[in-house]
Amino acid sequence: MPRLDPLLSPRTVAVVGASPDLHIFRGRTLKVMLGHAFAGRIYPVSRSHAEVQGLRAFPSVAAIPEPVDLAILIIPAEFVPDELERCGAAGVKAAMILASGFAEAGDAAGEALQARVVAIAERHGMIVCGPNAEGFANTAAALCPTFSPAVDNMTVPLVPPWRPRGHVAVVAQSGGMGFALFDRGRPRELPFSYIITTGNEACLDCFEIVDHLLDDDRSDVFLVYLETIRNPRAFERAATRALAAGKPIIVAKVGSSDAGRRASRSHTAADTGDHAAYQALFRRHGILEAADLDEMVDLAVAFSLYRERLPAGRRVGIGTASGGGGGWLGDLCVAAGLELPILDGETRAELDRLIPPYGSSQNPVDATAQAIVQSGYAELARLITASRVVDAVIMIVSARMATSFEKERAELTALGEASGKPIFLWSYTLPAADTARIVSQCGLPLFTSMQSCARTVAALAGYRAFREHALRAGL
Amino acid sequence: MPRLDPLLSPRTVAVVGASPDLHIFRGRTLKVMLGHAFAGRIYPVSRSHAEVQGLRAFPSVAAIPEPVDLAILIIPAEFVPDELERCGAAGVKAAMILASGFAEAGDAAGEALQARVVAIAERHGMIVCGPNAEGFANTAAALCPTFSPAVDNMTVPLVPPWRPRGHVAVVAQSGGMGFALFDRGRPRELPFSYIITTGNEACLDCFEIVDHLLDDDRSDVFLVYLETIRNPRAFERAATRALAAGKPIIVAKVGSSDAGRRASRSHTAADTGDHAAYQALFRRHGILEAADLDEMVDLAVAFSLYRERLPAGRRVGIGTASGGGGGWLGDLCVAAGLELPILDGETRAELDRLIPPYGSSQNPVDATAQAIVQSGYAELARLITASRVVDAVIMIVSARMATSFEKERAELTALGEASGKPIFLWSYTLPAADTARIVSQCGLPLFTSMQSCARTVAALAGYRAFREHALRAGL
Repeated sequence: MPRLDPLLSPRTVAVVGASPDLHIFRGRTLKVMLGHAFAGRIYPVSRSHAEVQGLRAFPSVAAIPEPVDLAILIIPAEFVPDELERCGAAGVKAAMILASGFAEAGDAAGEALQARVVAIAERHGMIVCGPNAEGFANTAAALCPTFSPAVDNMTVPLVPPWRPRGHVAVVAQSGGMGFALFDRGRPRELPFSYIITTGNEACLDCFEIVDHLLDDDRSDVFLVYLETIRNPRAFERAATRALAAGKPIIVAKVGSSDAGRRASRSHTAADTGDHAAYQALFRRHGILEAADLDEMVDLAVAFSLYRERLPAGRRVGIGTASGGGGGWLGDLCVAAGLELPILDGETRAELDRLIPPYGSSQNPVDATAQAIVQSGYAELARLITASRVVDAVIMIVSARMATSFEKERAELTALGEASGKPIFLWSYTLPAADTARIVSQCGLPLFTSMQSCARTVAALAGYRAFREHALRAGL
Repeated sequence: MPRLDPLLSPRTVAVVGASPDLHIFRGRTLKVMLGHAFAGRIYPVSRSHAEVQGLRAFPSVAAIPEPVDLAILIIPAEFVPDELERCGAAGVKAAMILASGFAEAGDAAGEALQARVVAIAERHGMIVCGPNAEGFANTAAALCPTFSPAVDNMTVPLVPPWRPRGHVAVVAQSGGMGFALFDRGRPRELPFSYIITTGNEACLDCFEIVDHLLDDDRSDVFLVYLETIRNPRAFERAATRALAAGKPIIVAKVGSSDAGRRASRSHTAADTGDHAAYQALFRRHGILEAADLDEMVDLAVAFSLYRERLPAGRRVGIGTASGGGGGWLGDLCVAAGLELPILDGETRAELDRLIPPYGSSQNPVDATAQAIVQSGYAELARLITASRVVDAVIMIVSARMATSFEKERAELTALGEASGKPIFLWSYTLPAADTARIVSQCGLPLFTSMQSCARTVAALAGYRAFREHALRAGL
């Protein structure tokens, strides 16, 4: 059994400190867990209640009638070491510590508590995540031991049912940022495998988790929020294996400013280190840096669909009904390091049959609204994609209404399947939820940010080029 | 009567080419117009129908029983000059030409048609907008002569009723991009005064329109999509007057790449010129450049509320429940040219009464989720805003659920009203529609993009500094 399975894929979970009060984290965490159809057993542990939220509660972990894989500790920091000791004695294999007030408090007492956690974990050979973490979600298991509102009262399923591949794992030293990626990705139909938050990483660091997830074959893309790297050897190993497997790692690294460094120290007791050195480290390993949450989600959306169909080069064709949008996005693509060659004569002749004389078949291909209404987005995309001078295509669409996408569903799906080149959609209007779902079902990525769309396409081309070079050089 | 009133605020409008067929632009334009409660009279002009969409139609503009202020021409390009001549002869004061196929077609026939339009307009002293435009919207008049889907079947009112000030005018050489700004701004509760699209600008250029709007006092912020400036004197005049009035102009200028230049030529026959020279021109006039649609909308949201309460300097305080979000946004603020000073002792002492020891009162102020639940966002924001070392405050919130904002409505409103400093909200989760509305009613701007939030705050501070310097120097 892989080492981290008791933590991330437990069959039995004790919730130590579970409460009936849904206004406090100790009650919220159990409530969030019970809101999902987890197939394992959940055991509340409470000194003051015989039953919590409809489940029989136990006075201690030792009283639970079967072996416990994972204990979730939501009790205050000062009680954590003794409870962890009891978990170890009872044979609990893993613990997730949600309490705050350890090394990040910046005082001797917090440091001492954290040191005791480390010692107890080592003595019992327990896998311990946190402290000061926000729990995790394992979507396939429908297991969400966290108080994050992002997986509570959800309006969409944890994973879109029609997306069997291209799952995205989030590993984050910040609970807020980790679950924010989930919150922002799900309306985009992004399929998440895990959201794992690691807090102070007293025992287990985020790249040890990435390394573990590289084995279980449920995660193809990694989003990692970082304040520091505590285990450089785990990083080296995970980064090298991920690149070999073609599973991109996208990081956001905090600490380029004094403000970021201060915040990280008080947040997770992290020493953010030298920013330029981190950036060089990432470049050396083909790891992509994202500037903010939106860029991370955009990169994940694109890699999730196109990990095995990355652009072979930097030449992009743009098709558009909005002449203004074409020129503007063209500028941004070039600024992002892409090229927009004028299309070959053969392709232009085919396009010119569809496009009125006041449009353009050069590139950007300004089909005008009239040609889009008559021929549809898919036919235009198909013709541009076929050009031998482009490696990828961006179609500029208006996704405000779902009707035209519903009508073209079959053609758009065929496009995605037939084409050897990646096709991206950028919508100048805000997409309706229906459109986002249809486009996702067609296997196409839909963007709203112009800058991030351009940068994402460039990043995909750059990742493929870097990886192929690294593979030729023997990694 | 100001010169452009017959075009933008007509009392009588002829729709030449109006059709009962809602699938073609000639039918759609009238349908969109009839979807809004315009108080003036609309006269369809049709050779083939006595009635169109429930309105009596007239065989010609001359047959309309009263003087016509504005004619909307949706007929094909080759018929436009003769029809414009008939409009001039009938005393029509202004025309909006939606047809394409003029100079942007890139052939002699298109050039000749456009030259005829100019000659006829001059001979009759008619105000002519376009050709190749997408019409406009005058929200106060509920007049939307355009086929843009953005103002058809709207799910929100044209203007949020609780926003009497800070209106935003869009003037765009692209119909798609102009109305996309409206589409993206309205769910953010941005109050638009006009969306005006100008196409090829054969007779009337966008800064002549900005100049006109500076007089009518219904527009406080200008968003301008540009491929070229055709009337440099109108630009100089409008830019100078706007700066004097403290009404910021935010432009997106296409043409930094060959692709953008090509696209603009075929789109509106625009010569995009030297990009660096344009950038220098904008800087010299205190005009802000935005990189994409999202940045334009973010700047408009901020200036709309804070045009008269701009940050006096570049020092920002950040308050957050997410320690990770604080550090990350702090880095981005510094990258955008802002400063995050450690707060003064007095302010920190007050904050430390609210914040648990594992949080931080330095800056970013990491209040932790616990303190936010207990004290609320407003109290935290109030304390940080009061610090003498900050000029502006960014509160990091989770706007996914409206409940906490509903609860704090009074406090948040008081905050906006009492504080002399601008307060910005950045949400790490995607805001619910309810939250966006409540926050807008409280008079606070809500952002989702981290980079754009940081850049917007920096841009506001930069605009104030530039303008004060220019005013001291006598503009």
